[in-house]
Amino acid sequence: MTFIETLAAAWTRNDSLLCVGLDPDPAKFPAALAGRDEAIFEFCRDIVDAAADLVCAFKPQIAHFAAHRAEDQLEALIAHIHAAHPDIPVILDAKRGDIGSTAERYALEAFARYRADAVTVNPYLGRDSLEPYLAWRDKGVILLCRTSNPGGGDLQTLDVGGGEKLFERVARLAVRWNASGQCALVVGATFPADLARARDLAGDMPILVPGIGAQGGDIAATVKAGMTQTGAGLIISSSRAILYAGKGEDYAQAARRTAEGMRNAINDQRIAAGRRAEN
Amino acid sequence: MTFIETLAAAWTRNDSLLCVGLDPDPAKFPAALAGRDEAIFEFCRDIVDAAADLVCAFKPQIAHFAAHRAEDQLEALIAHIHAAHPDIPVILDAKRGDIGSTAERYALEAFARYRADAVTVNPYLGRDSLEPYLAWRDKGVILLCRTSNPGGGDLQTLDVGGGEKLFERVARLAVRWNASGQCALVVGATFPADLARARDLAGDMPILVPGIGAQGGDIAATVKAGMTQTGAGLIISSSRAILYAGKGEDYAQAARRTAEGMRNAINDQRIAAGRRAEN
Repeated sequence: MTFIETLAAAWTRNDSLLCVGLDPDPAKFPAALAGRDEAIFEFCRDIVDAAADLVCAFKPQIAHFAAHRAEDQLEALIAHIHAAHPDIPVILDAKRGDIGSTAERYALEAFARYRADAVTVNPYLGRDSLEPYLAWRDKGVILLCRTSNPGGGDLQTLDVGGGEKLFERVARLAVRWNASGQCALVVGATFPADLARARDLAGDMPILVPGIGAQGGDIAATVKAGMTQTGAGLIISSSRAILYAGKGEDYAQAARRTAEGMRNAINDQRIAAGRRAEN
Repeated sequence: MTFIETLAAAWTRNDSLLCVGLDPDPAKFPAALAGRDEAIFEFCRDIVDAAADLVCAFKPQIAHFAAHRAEDQLEALIAHIHAAHPDIPVILDAKRGDIGSTAERYALEAFARYRADAVTVNPYLGRDSLEPYLAWRDKGVILLCRTSNPGGGDLQTLDVGGGEKLFERVARLAVRWNASGQCALVVGATFPADLARARDLAGDMPILVPGIGAQGGDIAATVKAGMTQTGAGLIISSSRAILYAGKGEDYAQAARRTAEGMRNAINDQRIAAGRRAEN
């Protein structure tokens, strides 16, 4: 199965558009993990095992491993997800962007070394910078489109002609470059109107929406603006609000409860929009 | 000394604008290194030691280490450069681009873990995505501006208003964001007119020009278009043409000869332009 097929199956099986972002920060780990050699792996593994039936994807963020010299723990984590939860795709959040033989190396890093099902990439270098990833036909390639940070508009909302914004051009190019059906987009939740615009342009292409907190308002606006006609199409990612929901020994169960609340809040919005039957 | 100061001193001391890009590819290594556990480190170290008096910087490309699970060899290589050649700055070519706490982790990866003097970054996420790097006041932050690949124009040459191209906006923004004097730009050698334009906009800001081959034409056009009024300002990077100049046991000396030829070809153009005295 390809990444897109695995994702679609997980949407249905777990009745969930929720993705858990795995951004481990040892400074926030519960005391029980202090000083353990494999604390990063163990923490993420416990979260993964507690939430696997509630999500459509897991999204480890590579910088949070690399800053701690923990590439081996990232390898072990993704291997664990594939072994224990083979129906849940893994998105490696790396936002790579380079050309030629270097992009080939980054694709090897993501897909051969880490065995990710999809990787996030930066579109600034254009189409040929994506080809080494697209050459892996069963993998997903998720292009940054509109980010939610304050500086996201420095380039992304520039008018590139006739009122078209740069992020809109990226969405259009992604559709054009997606002949093999492997692409998805990253659009932050901060600007629902831009998410709606990206959805209009991208058809049924999956959209990864990072940065959702525990607030229902974020979720409502995101679902309304971003879901497809069939009530799916979104990978709504939350990291810290889930990972650090509890500070005690029950951190994994606290994470599960928060993830379940978010999954259900998302589904309530799908039901409200009439795009998903009430269970 | 800051990165910019170290770079300027190396330009003068070694009378060189040449940077050696360290993109190790074990498939191209000489037979003498076959099967050695630390072959990537040893190959790069030998090139570095052979060429250190001919260059203004070394630029290891991280994907070429990560694809081989060789982060430890990259750490060892940069530590070796600092110990053996403390006057030569190290640019970690990583082209990272992310926001908030993730960008902080990438800055830790580059500057604390790898001890790079500068890092390449992608500007697509805007100003606040660069701040975690700029917070390291003695380090360099080198923004992708105009890349030399065929798809470089997909976004970078879009007209963002009044005839201004996106890469020109990036150059202007880099100047605006550079209050602390830490920034530089990446502009490929393929389009000398765009390099000249970036130089016009960027003042004396250093420009990293990757992808120079052994061709004199590339060098002539690059030096003419990109150097500052004082005949410096450029970090002209070559990787494969130097690294794989020889296939035998004398690979390091072959690399040195090629690097010396490039250094001299660059200086011939500086002399021809009247911006550097003949020795």
